[in-house]
Amino acid sequence: RVLRIGLIPGDGIGREVIPAGRRVLEALPASLGLKFDFVDLHAGFETFEKTGAALPDKTVEVLKNECDGALFGAVSSPSTAVKGYSSPIVALRKRLDLYANVRPVKTVLSAQNPIDMVIVRENTEDLYVKEEKTYDGPDGKVAEAIKRISYRASSRIATMAGEIALRREKIRKAGVPSIHKGPLVTITHKSNVLSQTDGLFRATCREALAADQFAGRVEVEEQIVDSMVYKLFRQPEAYDVIVAPNLYGDILSDGAAALVGSLGLVPSANVGEGFAIGEPCHGSAPDIMGQGIANPIATLRSTALMLEFLNEEDAAAKIYAAVDANLEEGKLLSPDLGGKAKTDQVVEDILRRL
Amino acid sequence: RVLRIGLIPGDGIGREVIPAGRRVLEALPASLGLKFDFVDLHAGFETFEKTGAALPDKTVEVLKNECDGALFGAVSSPSTAVKGYSSPIVALRKRLDLYANVRPVKTVLSAQNPIDMVIVRENTEDLYVKEEKTYDGPDGKVAEAIKRISYRASSRIATMAGEIALRREKIRKAGVPSIHKGPLVTITHKSNVLSQTDGLFRATCREALAADQFAGRVEVEEQIVDSMVYKLFRQPEAYDVIVAPNLYGDILSDGAAALVGSLGLVPSANVGEGFAIGEPCHGSAPDIMGQGIANPIATLRSTALMLEFLNEEDAAAKIYAAVDANLEEGKLLSPDLGGKAKTDQVVEDILRRL
Ligand SMILES: CC(C)[C@H](C(=O)O)[C@@H](O)C(=O)O
Ligand SMILES: CC(C)[C@H](C(=O)O)[C@@H](O)C(=O)O
Repeated sequence: RVLRIGLIPGDGIGREVIPAGRRVLEALPASLGLKFDFVDLHAGFETFEKTGAALPDKTVEVLKNECDGALFGAVSSPSTAVKGYSSPIVALRKRLDLYANVRPVKTVLSAQNPIDMVIVRENTEDLYVKEEKTYDGPDGKVAEAIKRISYRASSRIATMAGEIALRREKIRKAGVPSIHKGPLVTITHKSNVLSQTDGLFRATCREALAADQFAGRVEVEEQIVDSMVYKLFRQPEAYDVIVAPNLYGDILSDGAAALVGSLGLVPSANVGEGFAIGEPCHGSAPDIMGQGIANPIATLRSTALMLEFLNEEDAAAKIYAAVDANLEEGKLLSPDLGGKAKTDQVVEDILRRL
Repeated sequence: RVLRIGLIPGDGIGREVIPAGRRVLEALPASLGLKFDFVDLHAGFETFEKTGAALPDKTVEVLKNECDGALFGAVSSPSTAVKGYSSPIVALRKRLDLYANVRPVKTVLSAQNPIDMVIVRENTEDLYVKEEKTYDGPDGKVAEAIKRISYRASSRIATMAGEIALRREKIRKAGVPSIHKGPLVTITHKSNVLSQTDGLFRATCREALAADQFAGRVEVEEQIVDSMVYKLFRQPEAYDVIVAPNLYGDILSDGAAALVGSLGLVPSANVGEGFAIGEPCHGSAPDIMGQGIANPIATLRSTALMLEFLNEEDAAAKIYAAVDANLEEGKLLSPDLGGKAKTDQVVEDILRRL
C-alpha cells in the first residue's frame, strides 16, 4: 500500500517537528508493506503574511484530492487581532469535515502515577463555528458568539468515543499491559447551566452510547466540566475515554497534558471519514524556535495516531513502542522533560528502536 | 456596626456548613465592634420541589432590602433536566448584579509547593446569560446558546482584578509573608478563536488595567484559556490575580482548587456594589451529606471574604488566621484532607483560635 501524506509544518517549531514525522514513516520496517509519498503544503501565519490567506485553497484541494492523510505542525497566533487572519487549523477541520479530535494522554506504565486516557473532542461546532457579531450597547460595545451543538455531531462523536473505548479494550485483551479494567466513557458538559445546548450533547451521547454495539459493554458516566477539571487532577487514573464538546475538549486536553509532564508528549489526530491529520497538541513555541530543541515525540505519536485511523495499526504500534522505549530508558530526553538532547538526537534514538 | 446577614443553606452539605459561617461571625471578638443579625432564607432544588421556584422572590427581596451581605451554601443539580428548574445561584448573581466572583486559592505558606492566587471571575454574562434555543435541522435537533461579552462588564471586572492585586500588595507590604513579589494580573481568554467576544474581553481588560491607578504599578500579562489550564498545573506559583470571563473562571477555579488538595478549602464571594455573598466553591456533595463530615473551611473563608468586601478587613483577617493555624497544625482535619475530624470539631478548633 502506498500512502500519500501531506506535510504542513506551519510556523515556529512546527517546522522542526514535522520533518521528524516524515522520517519515522520512511524508517518503518519494509516488512509492513507500506510505502509513503509526501507533498509539502502551506498554511499558517507566515503564509498569511506572504499570500493573504492563512489556509490557501490549494492546500485544501491537494489534501482532498490527492492525499490519504496529513501531518500538521503548529501555527503562530498574532499577539493582537490581525484583520483577515483566522486560525487555519480550525478552518481545515471544518472544510475537510474532520469531526473528531482524538487526544490520547498517557504516561509510561512504570510512571509513579500512571495515567492512560483518550480525550475525544468534537471538532466542528460549539463556539468554533465562529459566528460572532459586535454592536453598540447603552454602555459601550457588546459582542456575541454562537455556541452551536447538533444532534448529528454529538451523536457521531459519542459513537467514535464508544468505538475507541472498545478498541482500547481489544488491545488490552491482546495482552498489552494497561492500568485500566473495563471500557469507560465519561461525558463532559455543563448542562446545569446550558440546559439546551449542553443538555442536547449530554442526552445525545447517552443515546449513542446505549446503542447495541455498546450496551452492556461500555460503562458510561458523566462529569460537569468544572468538576471534570478538578477530578482530572485529583484522580486522573480513573479515566479511560472522555468525550466532550469542542471547547471543553480543547481545555481538558491541555489540562491532561500538564499531568504527563509536557505538552511536548501529547499527540492528536483530526479524524473524518477515511482521512486523518496528525497534529501535535503543542503550539508553535516562539520562545524555543530555531534552537533545535523541540520535543519531537508529540509529532511522532501523532504520526502513529494518523496511521491508526488509516487502519495501519501494526505500523502505529511500532512507533508507539519505540517512543515508549525511549521514554522508559529516559537517557535521551529533550529539555522540556528535563533532558539535554536535541530534537534530532531524540528522533534518532527512537528510529533505531523501530 | 450591626450587619444583617442572610443565610441561604440550599441543599445537601450546604445545610451543614452554613451554620459554621454563622458561628464564626458570632464568635468574633467583641473588640471589633461588630454585631450580627441573621435571616434564614430559602433557595435550591428542595425549595423548587416544594414551592415551584428555586429562587423565591422573597429571598431576593429580603436580600435587597434588608441585608448587608449573605452566605450561600450549595444547591443540588437534578441528574436530568427538570422542566422549569434552573440554578438559583446563577439567577441570584444576575438579579443582585453581583458582577464579580472572587475566588482566592491558596495553600498554607509552609506547603511544599505554596500557591496563593485569586481568580476574579466575571459573574453576570458570557454563556451564563442562558439565552438558548433549539430547532430542527436537516439531521436532527440543533441547539444554540449566546455567549455575550460587554465592554461594561469586562471593564469593571478588570478594574476589580487590578484593585485586588493592589490590595494584596498592600497587605504584603504590611508584613504578611507571601510567595509573591509584585502585583500581576493575568488576563485569560480565547481570542485566537473568538476574536470578537473574547477579543473584546481582552482589549477591554488591557484598557482598564492601563488606567492611571494601575499603570506602572500592576504588571499585566495574558494566557489563552487552554494554555492557562496547562500553566496553572505546571507553575501555579507564577500567578497572583487571574481575571477571566464567567465560564473560564468557573473552570479555572475548580482546577486551582485541585491544586490545594480539596474543593473543601476554597471560598468565593459574589460581589456587587456594597453587597457580597460568601459561597463555598464546593457543591452540595450528596455522597457525604448527613454524615457531619463536610469541611467547613470553604465556608469559613467565604465568610471572611464577605466581610472583606463589606470593608471589615480586620474581622476577615482574624478568621483567615484562625483557619490557617488549624491547617498549619494539621491535627484536626476533615476526611477530604485525610483527617478524621467531624465538621463540628474543625469548627470548634478554629473558633478557639480566633
Ligand atoms: C490554535 C487553536 C485554534 C487550537 C484550538 O483551539 O483548537 C489549539 O488550541 C488546539 O487545541 O489545537
Ligand atoms: C452550580 C453552578 C451553576 C455554578 C456555576 O457554574 O457558576 C458552580 O459551578 C459555581 O462555580 O458556583
